[in-house]
Amino acid sequence: MTGTTDIRVRYAETDQMGRAHHRHYLVWCELGRTALMRDSGLSYAALERDGVLLPVARVEIEYRAPVFYDEVVRIHTRVERVRSRSVEFGYRLTRDEDRTTVALARITLASADTDGRPRRLPPPVRDALARLAPPERPSGEESR
Amino acid sequence: MTGTTDIRVRYAETDQMGRAHHRHYLVWCELGRTALMRDSGLSYAALERDGVLLPVARVEIEYRAPVFYDEVVRIHTRVERVRSRSVEFGYRLTRDEDRTTVALARITLASADTDGRPRRLPPPVRDALARLAPPERPSGEESR
Amino acid sequence: MTGTTDIRVRYAETDQMGRAHHRHYLVWCELGRTALMRDSGLSYAALERDGVLLPVARVEIEYRAPVFYDEVVRIHTRVERVRSRSVEFGYRLTRDEDRTTVALARITLASADTDGRPRRLPPPVRDALARLAPPERPSGEESR
Amino acid sequence: MTGTTDIRVRYAETDQMGRAHHRHYLVWCELGRTALMRDSGLSYAALERDGVLLPVARVEIEYRAPVFYDEVVRIHTRVERVRSRSVEFGYRLTRDEDRTTVALARITLASADTDGRPRRLPPPVRDALARLAPPERPSGEESR
Repeated sequence: MTGTTDIRVRYAETDQMGRAHHRHYLVWCELGRTALMRDSGLSYAALERDGVLLPVARVEIEYRAPVFYDEVVRIHTRVERVRSRSVEFGYRLTRDEDRTTVALARITLASADTDGRPRRLPPPVRDALARLAPPERPSGEESR
Repeated sequence: MTGTTDIRVRYAETDQMGRAHHRHYLVWCELGRTALMRDSGLSYAALERDGVLLPVARVEIEYRAPVFYDEVVRIHTRVERVRSRSVEFGYRLTRDEDRTTVALARITLASADTDGRPRRLPPPVRDALARLAPPERPSGEESR
Repeated sequence: MTGTTDIRVRYAETDQMGRAHHRHYLVWCELGRTALMRDSGLSYAALERDGVLLPVARVEIEYRAPVFYDEVVRIHTRVERVRSRSVEFGYRLTRDEDRTTVALARITLASADTDGRPRRLPPPVRDALARLAPPERPSGEESR
Repeated sequence: MTGTTDIRVRYAETDQMGRAHHRHYLVWCELGRTALMRDSGLSYAALERDGVLLPVARVEIEYRAPVFYDEVVRIHTRVERVRSRSVEFGYRLTRDEDRTTVALARITLASADTDGRPRRLPPPVRDALARLAPPERPSGEESR
């Protein structure tokens, strides 16, 4: 399942090159995954209140085309893989106007307790995330 | 007593007008006051660990001249007034190169407990801040 | 005329006090005024392409109550006053859930050319903004 | 050659997890590479004035340990590889206090003209960057 969230590039997100500064894409991906989780009944705000933190452990992002002030960017988010202590999301960002892919990303979140120590994802959370992931492929077949 | 802190405008702080975006001045003032407090033996990090939060309650800022990427800005900070539950800081921001005043600000912090409820400033904190403030003027005389 | 724009507090906008950091309110106000202008046929993106910059010259903001991650904040924006080289906007920010006023602000933009020098607002822009402002009061009456 | 730059985590860079939000590491890396370039006689500000833009084309970052408000982070930056139209930087971020590696990153910048079109790095820029890179390895040997 792929969730989609639209954001409009804010003036405050531009830099003097006249485009959105690259750090903001990480924030947009964060919006994409929290929206996807919310739609699946997993409120990130509620998870934190229950003592489950999901800090970002790894980011890989490829910027394909700049985006500009006031443009609408669509964030396509999906769960790529769920492990016992982490979950990996995949993202494709497109410019709404012409459907161009402007960025591709993979972001891994690690499950931690409120002291920042690794902890297993609680089973209901893990299951909810797994339901969003593509079906397991038979072993031997590469996932991408 | 006036503390001074220098910052260099970051690329990420510019916007497409080619100048530092106005929101960052609030961050620079925050650096100015935490540096002034640190120099006076008041660690803001330690205050928070002791349950004293100092959220911003009021900001007044006048932008006089733009500042640009890579320029050094000097933040002159002083305590203007200490009350039982709040403290007001005054700021003058100058461009290091030509001493131009680029902004003037007044920012009030309110003392709160960890649940966000108003609380009195602990006496040692209040005293330390008061030592940084200009001497009390006789009543009837305007403070500025 | 008052425009309203809703934003949802982003995780990236929180700070370790657990609330939205105060600088982001300036960004939200920016969203409020560009939305109001867009609704009135004034695209800020187009203005800049025509060589009219509107940098922020003054901010006054009072923070009344904290806002938290994932809360929806409604930004009520109106034009307070239009002058030949500046325009002042007034803002009321409310928490959507309980209608509490969480902040009040007044922000003045100064009209500048692409070199940052003051310039008069082009008459069509001035008129469009003036149509959004409350009617002039007879002289002698205070504006607020 | 490895450049080192120290930053102190700003309050405004924390999030409600109580650590620096992951997007800021990209800004710190930006500070690391502009400082390294400045030390080698390459002012990024001057490059842009000459019509050479270096937008970020790719980021890979691994977050190893959280960093907290007021901690000093040392950014170790080096040029990994220079190509005709791009340059790749490598980063190691360490917590100053205990020398822990808190993050590792690789960031590729693509050379572009002021319209955002790919352009070759001007030879003097390319040479200056190449002097910062490790010596070429004989072919057949892996670069890392």
